[in-house]
Amino acid sequence: MNVIEHPASALHFPALQPPKRYLFGPGPTMVDPRVYAALSKPIVGHLDAYFIQIMSDVQQLVKMVYGANEASTLVISGTGSAGMEAAISNFVEPGSKFAVFANGYFSDRLTEMAKRHGANIVRFEKAWGEVYSDAEARDFIRREKPQVVAFVHAETSTGALQQGKAICDAAHEVGALVIGDCVTSLGGIPVNFDETGIDVAYSCTQKGLSCPPGLSPMAISERATTWLRGRTTPPRSWYLDLKLIHDYSTVSHRYHHTAPISMFYALREALMVIAEEGIENRWERHRRANRSFVNGIEAIGLKMHVPAEHRIANLSTVKVPEGVDEAKVRKQLLEGSGIEIAGGFGPLAGKVFRIGIMGPLATEENVQFFLKEFKKALGVQG
Amino acid sequence: MNVIEHPASALHFPALQPPKRYLFGPGPTMVDPRVYAALSKPIVGHLDAYFIQIMSDVQQLVKMVYGANEASTLVISGTGSAGMEAAISNFVEPGSKFAVFANGYFSDRLTEMAKRHGANIVRFEKAWGEVYSDAEARDFIRREKPQVVAFVHAETSTGALQQGKAICDAAHEVGALVIGDCVTSLGGIPVNFDETGIDVAYSCTQKGLSCPPGLSPMAISERATTWLRGRTTPPRSWYLDLKLIHDYSTVSHRYHHTAPISMFYALREALMVIAEEGIENRWERHRRANRSFVNGIEAIGLKMHVPAEHRIANLSTVKVPEGVDEAKVRKQLLEGSGIEIAGGFGPLAGKVFRIGIMGPLATEENVQFFLKEFKKALGVQG
Repeated sequence: MNVIEHPASALHFPALQPPKRYLFGPGPTMVDPRVYAALSKPIVGHLDAYFIQIMSDVQQLVKMVYGANEASTLVISGTGSAGMEAAISNFVEPGSKFAVFANGYFSDRLTEMAKRHGANIVRFEKAWGEVYSDAEARDFIRREKPQVVAFVHAETSTGALQQGKAICDAAHEVGALVIGDCVTSLGGIPVNFDETGIDVAYSCTQKGLSCPPGLSPMAISERATTWLRGRTTPPRSWYLDLKLIHDYSTVSHRYHHTAPISMFYALREALMVIAEEGIENRWERHRRANRSFVNGIEAIGLKMHVPAEHRIANLSTVKVPEGVDEAKVRKQLLEGSGIEIAGGFGPLAGKVFRIGIMGPLATEENVQFFLKEFKKALGVQG
Repeated sequence: MNVIEHPASALHFPALQPPKRYLFGPGPTMVDPRVYAALSKPIVGHLDAYFIQIMSDVQQLVKMVYGANEASTLVISGTGSAGMEAAISNFVEPGSKFAVFANGYFSDRLTEMAKRHGANIVRFEKAWGEVYSDAEARDFIRREKPQVVAFVHAETSTGALQQGKAICDAAHEVGALVIGDCVTSLGGIPVNFDETGIDVAYSCTQKGLSCPPGLSPMAISERATTWLRGRTTPPRSWYLDLKLIHDYSTVSHRYHHTAPISMFYALREALMVIAEEGIENRWERHRRANRSFVNGIEAIGLKMHVPAEHRIANLSTVKVPEGVDEAKVRKQLLEGSGIEIAGGFGPLAGKVFRIGIMGPLATEENVQFFLKEFKKALGVQG
């Protein structure tokens, strides 16, 4: 065979050389070097016994981070939003009544998806950043008697944490299933899936798990599994059909789609890093880093958007001080210090900074580094 | 802050150490070391100007492999099957008439998805491995007058190549859009998107592009774009809503989902490797490797499942000889030589081997290596 010539292409792009970033935003977050090393290991086939074992390991490790020992776990081959759509597509049948606790952007997204899947939607509206008391949650669910209830555990757009226990108890009283959005909470703060009584949870890899984006780990309660087995109409999405995915990943290993092998390698490694640290230690590390962060923020006279008792330890919303151009501060942080944070959007546009102190960044040293650069960007003496 | 202790976890899994495989199956296929290196580069945010540029580069490079200079390109954050569902979800409205050329597994999958999206389906059935003549394609489309037509360009389950020109011409005559499944063809053999007249094409990363699985590059004609702009009902899938994805990736860069950054790095590098070789050189390399492979197969008395004029250069179906246990041969190849190939399924179960000679493996040396090991596994003297 002749040697192939490699002519210069008409297309000239520079070599891949990403700038160094400190990812202090709501995600993606910093990734452990071990996880990058796992990403670049040689792939095997998606039906190879080795990969089947990798999927099984990942499912076990996902149970650990969710606190979901009595549940089934699986991983969707798409990002957190694919996990959200998998939850809706599989558990919200056309025509069924779907109740949403609507206090932020991601409950709006849940609403939009449920609408597209033909649900009959009722929303309990609150301002972005507020949460629901146990009594409010109970009253809403008892009054509406929905088939499915959805809430966002840690709302990335607002920084508010919604406890799920009262929601789940009330939902189960009326025979409803509960979908819990754990995109920002998983790996950073406790989800306590079994204890809380969530039926269907989805998350992402790129926030509390400190892995690049690309997969969505899910947990599904026994109750939800039984319900799904009894569902007689197929979900509108074939790609996100949990029965087919469960069969591929866990039961027959029959081909459904070609799973993103490298991303599974990375997720397994990210979960191993967490297992080695110990999940409770990790949560405690995030809590400590958050206390230190909030102390620093308040010391320079800034205010948190959410009251202390409803904050998310790994994702904070800080009020933009009067007269400060938040976009300019973010630009300065990114260009001057390589630090990424996010602004608010929707009703919080221009009003808050969204700052994530997660994974490898959740240490005293990194918090102090961040505060120093943040003060510089704000033009605050410190 | 105290030092975090890292207690041994209750969960003990061995370190990630994938076995060395020669991926001679239908996919995933071998990956260039440069692509693995790109995968493990540090991530940036999904709204970072650097990443927006990466997406733009990828779109340009995707045009080159598709031969789609007059089309829009974008990349779905899911595997090839997600691309298929994006095509169906966006271009097949509930109640619309959908015509499928049904001669293999992936046309069945297209049918199943379209059914879930509420289409009114007509199928032109042929045996697995057969293709449609220009006249047959025209007659079917003129008779049925569908709104959307779908065909599989290179059918991985059968090894048969379906030419698209007559299908596209006839479809356009009756005002229909054409969806072309290019999962196996893209990067391995010419698609000629513009010239053929395809309106919506999707593919994967893990076959002809020699990248790990996880993304789905799509091309969309001007005609299809115009149609989609005029669509008044939202697609049933929010995650795969092409208007929203196009807006995020190309227009406003407004957040839709958190794109799998690392996978985009890898895809860009895989496409750069192709651009540097030259796409025509790559196609020619696959053709030569295929000729050499087929010669070798026929020299040992085996037969190809598909007639010479309808074969796919990068994916071959070889008939299992009488009396041979194909599963045993595959097991022997995998365990003895680390070589993965696939068997047939559906009506071809037990009847064919499916062998991919793609990307880095499409060289004379690798073909001879494969043939030697294959003969050994078959117990053939050579």
